[in-house]
Order: sequence, then structure tokens, then C-alpha cells
Amino acid sequence: MNFCSHCGSSELTISIPKHDTVARKICLHCGTIHYENPKIIVASIPVKDNKILLCKRAIEPMKGKWTLPGGYMENGESAEEGAKRETMEEANATIDIVRLHTIYSLPHVNQVYLFFLGNVVSDFSAGEESLEVGLFAESEIPWEELVFSSAHYALKKYFDNPSEVQTHQGLYVPSNSKS
Amino acid sequence: MNFCSHCGSSELTISIPKHDTVARKICLHCGTIHYENPKIIVASIPVKDNKILLCKRAIEPMKGKWTLPGGYMENGESAEEGAKRETMEEANATIDIVRLHTIYSLPHVNQVYLFFLGNVVSDFSAGEESLEVGLFAESEIPWEELVFSSAHYALKKYFDNPSEVQTHQGLYVPSNSKS
Repeated sequence: MNFCSHCGSSELTISIPKHDTVARKICLHCGTIHYENPKIIVASIPVKDNKILLCKRAIEPMKGKWTLPGGYMENGESAEEGAKRETMEEANATIDIVRLHTIYSLPHVNQVYLFFLGNVVSDFSAGEESLEVGLFAESEIPWEELVFSSAHYALKKYFDNPSEVQTHQGLYVPSNSKS
Repeated sequence: MNFCSHCGSSELTISIPKHDTVARKICLHCGTIHYENPKIIVASIPVKDNKILLCKRAIEPMKGKWTLPGGYMENGESAEEGAKRETMEEANATIDIVRLHTIYSLPHVNQVYLFFLGNVVSDFSAGEESLEVGLFAESEIPWEELVFSSAHYALKKYFDNPSEVQTHQGLYVPSNSKS
């Protein structure tokens, strides 16, 4: 942020507003306080016939690697609707949400992942952002080609304990997730 | 947003970027796409001796009404850390997080509430944003003076079923929550 989005001034400073505890970007010209907050990534663990629907990424970062469907939550949708939308966009799959499975915070990049467990109730195929999609049993998960620590964590915990909500803070480092 | 925060231009338009499905504010001068996403409210259900710690609000909106401690999640913290921070700020109370209890989406205001169940492991007192704080057994909850639909929902569901994660989308309208 180089300019105040309210008045266009470049006179921005960083300081703690009155009655606040956190330093914010403040416009010295019009006084607008510019808050910045974490973003939500809505994602799913799509299940069909005891297998997981994974997507091979067609876009950077990590093009060509496998992961769970997910992306930034949008204004005007619920978290569940966001997870369903992302699953449709990336795998052309409709899921019925079972419940929240994993909440995964990444404070160093200001993100919170919300993974919803979902039953795939439609056909599926590669969406625009996927090179291919496929169903994988636990023994078939391509752990070495699976990207994003959040997806590793959610999948690992799903196989460990599908029925309990998992929470994690910070970067999860998979040892060798093929447990 | 009246001006591009990147280049200061007032030449902003709203259109759908290439490879996107949602209309965004885009700067016609420098091309910056200004994404807007939902915000997270981190909150707690603080429990001590089978009673709930509630806060009477010292600030608007809803000054003078009771609610659960909570507020906007900040950059650089996990969801759990945020819930602990808000509980400390509003009730000078330390909680040990038990687990996520409620996820509550409000698409019409672009918010997701995350309520964590927590055990109060310290003394407590009114923080700067509270007029008073107090412990309430289920039969003592001041439902008529309790504000925010999210807090009504979380508390109602806590008493109905403390051990399961609750999810809700859209505004919850309490009938008469004194069930």
C-alpha cells in the first residue's frame, strides 16, 4: 500500500491507533485506518468409495503437483459454499458437506485453511485449474507429489481419525506421511 | 475504495479479471487487482465451574449488552491465539483451548466466526472493552440481553451438545434461546 485508498494521499504512516493494540497503516491526510486481516482458504476432502479425489495443479505455484481442491473464500458466500465452489471449479465435482474436518492456521502468511469433509455425489473431471483429477485410496496417495503442508496435514489426520475436527497452528512438516 | 492503493490513480473499474469468475476492483492505470475477502472473528466460549464467562460491552455497537468475548483475527496469529487474545483483552482471563466449537458464516457481511471452547485457568475481570464480566450457569444466561446472533447460536449449541463442532450459515434467529 503506497496510497490511501480513501483519499489518494501518499502520506501514510504506521502507528497504533487510540484504543487499539496493533500498529496499522493510517492516512495522515484523512485519518483512515487501513486494517489488514488474515484470509480464509476454503478447501475440501472429497470422498467417494473410500477414496480421496485429488487434483493435479495446472497453475503455479506447484504446477504439476497433486493437492486437495481449495482456494480463497470469496465475499458473499459461507465457508461451506466456498469449499463446494472450489471443488466444482477444480474437479467439476459436486460434494455434500459432511462437516468441518480441519482448521489449519498459518500465522506467518496470515492464512487460515478450513477443510470440509465432503461426499462426492457427481461425476468429476479436471477443471480449468487442474491438469487431471483422480480418486486415490489411502495406499495410493502420492505423498511425495502432494503439495501444501495444509493438505498433507488434513489428509494425514483424515486417515488417522476421520471423525474428529483437527486443529493445527503453524507449518506442519510431514515426516513421511505414508503412515 | 476511491483510489488505487498501489499507484494512487482514481481510474478504478469493476470487472472480472482473466481466469477469474468474480468481479474485482481493478486499476485501469497500473492494472492492480484489488481483492476483497471475508474477515474472521475469533471468539471463545470460556468455561469455569460449568459456568460461562460473559462480557457486558463497554463499546458500541450494543454497548451495555452481554456477549461472548471475540473480535477480528489479526495478522501474525493463529485462530486459537486470536481467541485467547480476545478473551484476555475483554475479560482479563486466560483460557486453555479445548477445541473449535462453532463455525458460523455470515455471507451478507462477509464474516466467519470461529468460536473456541476454552477452560478459564486464571482470575478474570472487566477488560477495557467491557463494563463488567461474570460467570453464568445455563439457567442464568441473560438471553434477552445477549447480543449477536453468532453468540446466541454458539451458546445454544454448547448447551445442546458441547462435544460436537457446530456449523451454521446465515443469520441464526433465536426463538427463545432459554431452552
